[in-house]
Amino acid sequence: MINKLVEKIQKTNAPIVVGLDPMMKFIPDHIKEKAFAEYGETLKGASEAIWEYNKGIVDAVYDLIPAVKPQVAMYEQFGIEGMIAFKKTVDYCKEKGLIVIGDVKRGDIGSTSEAYAVAHLGKVKVGNNSFYGFDEDFATVNPYLGSDGIKPFINVCKEEKKGIFILVKTSNPSSGEFQDRLIDGKPLYEWVGEKVAEWGADCMGDSYSYVGAVVGATYPEMGKVLRKVMPKSYILVPGYGAQGGTGKDLVHFFNEDGLGAIINSSRGIIAAYQQEKYARFGAANYADASRAAVLDMIDDIAGALGRK
Amino acid sequence: MINKLVEKIQKTNAPIVVGLDPMMKFIPDHIKEKAFAEYGETLKGASEAIWEYNKGIVDAVYDLIPAVKPQVAMYEQFGIEGMIAFKKTVDYCKEKGLIVIGDVKRGDIGSTSEAYAVAHLGKVKVGNNSFYGFDEDFATVNPYLGSDGIKPFINVCKEEKKGIFILVKTSNPSSGEFQDRLIDGKPLYEWVGEKVAEWGADCMGDSYSYVGAVVGATYPEMGKVLRKVMPKSYILVPGYGAQGGTGKDLVHFFNEDGLGAIINSSRGIIAAYQQEKYARFGAANYADASRAAVLDMIDDIAGALGRK
Repeated sequence: MINKLVEKIQKTNAPIVVGLDPMMKFIPDHIKEKAFAEYGETLKGASEAIWEYNKGIVDAVYDLIPAVKPQVAMYEQFGIEGMIAFKKTVDYCKEKGLIVIGDVKRGDIGSTSEAYAVAHLGKVKVGNNSFYGFDEDFATVNPYLGSDGIKPFINVCKEEKKGIFILVKTSNPSSGEFQDRLIDGKPLYEWVGEKVAEWGADCMGDSYSYVGAVVGATYPEMGKVLRKVMPKSYILVPGYGAQGGTGKDLVHFFNEDGLGAIINSSRGIIAAYQQEKYARFGAANYADASRAAVLDMIDDIAGALGRK
Repeated sequence: MINKLVEKIQKTNAPIVVGLDPMMKFIPDHIKEKAFAEYGETLKGASEAIWEYNKGIVDAVYDLIPAVKPQVAMYEQFGIEGMIAFKKTVDYCKEKGLIVIGDVKRGDIGSTSEAYAVAHLGKVKVGNNSFYGFDEDFATVNPYLGSDGIKPFINVCKEEKKGIFILVKTSNPSSGEFQDRLIDGKPLYEWVGEKVAEWGADCMGDSYSYVGAVVGATYPEMGKVLRKVMPKSYILVPGYGAQGGTGKDLVHFFNEDGLGAIINSSRGIIAAYQQEKYARFGAANYADASRAAVLDMIDDIAGALGRK
């Protein structure tokens, strides 16, 4: 799957992932009204609205991008009905040829981590049959529990030819509280980065590992260091756009082959129509606004990488 | 909810939580056969088997214990159908008067952590209505992202009078890879413990905080230190039984008031009938074996605490 991701990035010339993180306030009124008319102001109504909203965006941008990253929390908050919208979104994106990165930030120990890996990347056995649970292509994973929490994911990735992105340095303002603390002169995130490189060495695709990392666009200097610590790991970079990261911050996340990083934007794309810059589209054409925002993001990143 | 937890622990004299972590291999054949006969060897069949299995255990032990801790990964691996079994289990346990600790180990940043908090502890708005998603009483939370990841949970806890347990020192063998690393002479888990105390100071129940901690029974010496670092935090202690922790390891997790810790056992209780010690019950009476195992665990802990 890492090979497929690299190919699709090269083909689209867009090292971009669109974060499908639907919040009710992003969803245009006409979609909510239609869903609520059918199912009421219920969890099912919300789920239907989310699904229709996502579908519109995916239909408008799928030919421009290699991957999407649904944030499961935004679905999970609507309970079972929300998880149904999550699953429909994952399946639909795959039908459209997109790679799906499940932003689930799971992580536990031993058999429990294995269950999470199975839930999101693998197959579960039921009697003589086996079934995929949510079946994303990649999942994000939290490293706090150490190797016991990571290895079960890696085992499932090997079986399924899928991948993970491990949180190394997150994009949020308080990520430094623990991640930046110095241990023998090096920050914790660097120690985690070294483990990512170690875990990843054992599961290589053609040029990159199945084991990637998450490093926030909001910390470009750290990205520069981590790029060297994990030369074979793809870096998933959140924090572009709404969180403050810009194109020029991203240069150091890439390797000299022009690969090695994929930049996420969520609300900057999916709620583009709510920004002044794209207001001309109006809520009715929210998906067209998302397409325009994707094109601008591709342009911004290409410019920053000197590829224009 | 922390007050209710303390009350129930005092009333039952059992500082115990039963981990409802169903694995297919724990479920007696007669339950699986019945579920598969009705729904086939499908995700729905698995979900039905899990639910019937859980119900049997809960019915057999609910009067002895204050709380249960379903591990969501064990349900999530069965996809939507698994999450339905999770929700049924949560609801049923609450009906039986049990406190439900959702072992979800979620954690993200800002609005995403808020969505997770809403998913598991709070209410989500849909139009003019609001609904609970999964509606546990407590949730476990991962601290790697710092305050940004924790505060949204605390805000929801305050609104809902619910609580969280933050991972401090986990019970697994590799937990030390990052958690034990020294930062200015103190291990990371102690720094996290200090933050737990700080976060918790702001949301006190009568004698304990709504913000608790997870510290593994497998690390009793660290538990002793952390008990002092977080005097007002309840400590949820996994790792008893199957993972190797014993009654005498647990003493230091408690405060002098005899409170402050709640010990989890999962497979040691729910799959007791598969142990030699309880084999006499047989698979047909698996729930009675679980009851016997709970009584033995209460006895072991009471003995260790010198309360016999």
